[in-house]
Amino acid sequence: MKETFVKELKQVQLRTPILIEGLPGLGLVGKIATRYLIRHLKAEKFAKLYSPHFPYYVLVNKRGNIRLLQAAFYYWKNPNGENDLILFTGDSQAQTIEGQYEISDTIIEFAKKQGVKTIITLGGYRKEVDAKPKVIAAATDPKLLKKALEAEAILSPTGSPIVGTAGLILGLARFKKVSALCLLGETRGYIPDPKAAKSILEVLQKILGINIDLAGLDKQIAKAEKLVEKIQRIEEERAKQVEKARRKDEDRITYIS
Amino acid sequence: MKETFVKELKQVQLRTPILIEGLPGLGLVGKIATRYLIRHLKAEKFAKLYSPHFPYYVLVNKRGNIRLLQAAFYYWKNPNGENDLILFTGDSQAQTIEGQYEISDTIIEFAKKQGVKTIITLGGYRKEVDAKPKVIAAATDPKLLKKALEAEAILSPTGSPIVGTAGLILGLARFKKVSALCLLGETRGYIPDPKAAKSILEVLQKILGINIDLAGLDKQIAKAEKLVEKIQRIEEERAKQVEKARRKDEDRITYIS
Amino acid sequence: MKETFVKELKQVQLRTPILIEGLPGLGLVGKIATRYLIRHLKAEKFAKLYSPHFPYYVLVNKRGNIRLLQAAFYYWKNPNGENDLILFTGDSQAQTIEGQYEISDTIIEFAKKQGVKTIITLGGYRKEVDAKPKVIAAATDPKLLKKALEAEAILSPTGSPIVGTAGLILGLARFKKVSALCLLGETRGYIPDPKAAKSILEVLQKILGINIDLAGLDKQIAKAEKLVEKIQRIEEERAKQVEKARRKDEDRITYIS
Amino acid sequence: MKETFVKELKQVQLRTPILIEGLPGLGLVGKIATRYLIRHLKAEKFAKLYSPHFPYYVLVNKRGNIRLLQAAFYYWKNPNGENDLILFTGDSQAQTIEGQYEISDTIIEFAKKQGVKTIITLGGYRKEVDAKPKVIAAATDPKLLKKALEAEAILSPTGSPIVGTAGLILGLARFKKVSALCLLGETRGYIPDPKAAKSILEVLQKILGINIDLAGLDKQIAKAEKLVEKIQRIEEERAKQVEKARRKDEDRITYIS
Repeated sequence: MKETFVKELKQVQLRTPILIEGLPGLGLVGKIATRYLIRHLKAEKFAKLYSPHFPYYVLVNKRGNIRLLQAAFYYWKNPNGENDLILFTGDSQAQTIEGQYEISDTIIEFAKKQGVKTIITLGGYRKEVDAKPKVIAAATDPKLLKKALEAEAILSPTGSPIVGTAGLILGLARFKKVSALCLLGETRGYIPDPKAAKSILEVLQKILGINIDLAGLDKQIAKAEKLVEKIQRIEEERAKQVEKARRKDEDRITYIS
Repeated sequence: MKETFVKELKQVQLRTPILIEGLPGLGLVGKIATRYLIRHLKAEKFAKLYSPHFPYYVLVNKRGNIRLLQAAFYYWKNPNGENDLILFTGDSQAQTIEGQYEISDTIIEFAKKQGVKTIITLGGYRKEVDAKPKVIAAATDPKLLKKALEAEAILSPTGSPIVGTAGLILGLARFKKVSALCLLGETRGYIPDPKAAKSILEVLQKILGINIDLAGLDKQIAKAEKLVEKIQRIEEERAKQVEKARRKDEDRITYIS
Repeated sequence: MKETFVKELKQVQLRTPILIEGLPGLGLVGKIATRYLIRHLKAEKFAKLYSPHFPYYVLVNKRGNIRLLQAAFYYWKNPNGENDLILFTGDSQAQTIEGQYEISDTIIEFAKKQGVKTIITLGGYRKEVDAKPKVIAAATDPKLLKKALEAEAILSPTGSPIVGTAGLILGLARFKKVSALCLLGETRGYIPDPKAAKSILEVLQKILGINIDLAGLDKQIAKAEKLVEKIQRIEEERAKQVEKARRKDEDRITYIS
Repeated sequence: MKETFVKELKQVQLRTPILIEGLPGLGLVGKIATRYLIRHLKAEKFAKLYSPHFPYYVLVNKRGNIRLLQAAFYYWKNPNGENDLILFTGDSQAQTIEGQYEISDTIIEFAKKQGVKTIITLGGYRKEVDAKPKVIAAATDPKLLKKALEAEAILSPTGSPIVGTAGLILGLARFKKVSALCLLGETRGYIPDPKAAKSILEVLQKILGINIDLAGLDKQIAKAEKLVEKIQRIEEERAKQVEKARRKDEDRITYIS
């Protein structure tokens, strides 16, 4: 394997499909949202993407079976609307700069072959968020962006960088004559954040005009919140200790050269 | 040299050979096991593998001779069973991600040319092991895995990563229509661990249906255990010192910003 | 995108143009100077440069639009002199060694296609400078260097390295039969330094025989100087604290193993 | 520039030349020795080597001129012996693993084109050496090694690695049907070490059967020894301070978590 490639498992006919991309990233927001969609919609896997730019380890599956790191394309035939969906997620992002460009290129090329004209990438946006996470939007196409803002996303601040595949796909889409939108859920980012994923899915279902029951995410959210509370208690405790030590130490500064 | 390549020293005719791979890795378990097999079976070197992805130094051999870092293929004609063996080990793993994929690819391609249909990779599995190290198994093929479990290997936990060539070969084998099994000996991993290698060889001889006298490993094991004991004594001593210091320091916390 | 490439937006006819290059670097000196020229001369963008060696993120522009990291060529038709100008700046330098060489190559090749025979690269030169920053010059061509020295640049010390695109362009120019000059403004380098950029532009306008009103830079300079003063106050305060601690600690050295 | 290449400045006819290689490395031993030979023999530059794997900066020469990092081949016509010499040194080693292999390959290929059948690489060997540095030898060819041992080099310990171009050239020479010898001068390695270079040249002139007046190195050696003494005084002073602090601290251990 010298280059990133897509292995098709099945030929499918889709009606002007929209591609939703969510590889692992900040707070795993994009991956959690995309996986929830795949399960909830019972989307079917029809192609896999492999790359020598993924990390050099393999994973053991159930029953001791082994597989390369990979990403996969799933499809869902939309019974009501005019756009079928292709959903894309995977184990990892590329580990090299050149790999990041190569994988984003490969995703767009495969999507175009399936008739995709619109791509929506999902990810996290680092913020010290306490209340309901907002969803930040940026796009290559003003119409697409308008749709996102009408669905209660907010406009991305100017100059803000979007790192990795969720960003590069938009940067490259322009050259490939594809429209692309990026939705980023606000997240503190240091643990998997299903709450930010839920915010994204609320916006996404409005844009796509489909109904998704998001209740299934609430159990994950409760679990994550307990973890956050625990971490905060530990942090507060540590801060108190440090403060206590600082007072005792006030005129006992130790200088480390 | 722009790419990994294999230099054949000798043409050999082998009967449906099985490839055993053991490059250096955690606790050098795979390499120790493979080298023991090579010596014990008096396997003969018949091909070398070179790569510009190995580290950029050379080694001085006996008598001041010099050689590039390399790995090598050895063969053993099995007088009783129906499968000859090819044994593969070397100085180093690849130093880059792309190199890891390239070298694993090259090994499989060369093995296929020799008629190999089954590959067994050997390595270490990090664990705080005190008693006899267990052997963890994962495979691309349920029949092969079953054989390993019957030989008293235990099933790998789900989601566990296998890093480096021992893992990648299994990940890539699927695309090359080769069956592959990975056997990992439990090891603390911070020093060469012949005990874990012995556990692997006990499993391996049952799978292969050959008898290997493993007594030769016991001297190495005794030596390694003395080293471990010494390290443990040092660690315990240090822990005591730290505890002693901690008590004295109890209300004298020094904060380093 | 596998390689660095230039996308032309518009065909232009220029009279023996001179290329001015100023990518981000030490103190952002080259970029600040080049951007000031572009705005002041109302130079027009006519080509973009993209590269898979730029960092793997995208930027959000005004109105939530997204773009890849890029650099761009601008042109200015000189109403009085005999040389039109091409101005080149961008978001980033290449992130890999090979990328640095590839991008510098691409810039020179594109410039030559536009009829460029002379390139002037701009950057920063690290120095603890208090007064007016001097401008350091080095060149591939003694005539060009002489012009810079007559314009009050000073000769670069021998053996001094020039890192990144501003340097590599000169190194490669020799092979492409292009003359090149490098002007480096002295800068402490740890914050954007418009004062060093102003020094460069003073030299540059003499070399080019054009008049540029540099007053527009003075506001940026005042702002940067306030920031520097603030940082210096903080540093002095910290130095005092350390000195105070050192005295108290004199016979209380803590040894960290 | 996509690949390492050699630019010939002049066609020369040499009688079965021997190549001496000395790029910068440990203690700059190889480079100091090779440069001394070039100056002393008044060898003439006849080819340059450039590479995109050298670091991405350029150097300012005398008179503000600029040049890419490079290495160069010099020749010397031996008036007495039967072997002319080619001497190779430069600014830097390659910065990437692949670059290291590529540059070593390019050096050997160019040397073969000039009729070279024997290569001698020079470098440093890390050792806490107080007296006269010894010269360690390793070779691809027993005859060549024997010559070095007769010239009072000592045999390299088995298993010792030789890092970088001085080693890789020997590793690759075997594939190119060239004989190669490596001479490493013992050096502490943390400052340029002309004494180790002198030891190498003493061995080298015996092997080559030429006389080189080495007195010119003694001034450099005296200077380097003063520097070493100064560093040692500083180290001893520091050790005393630490010991003093340790005694005071004996039952005041500070534990940094």
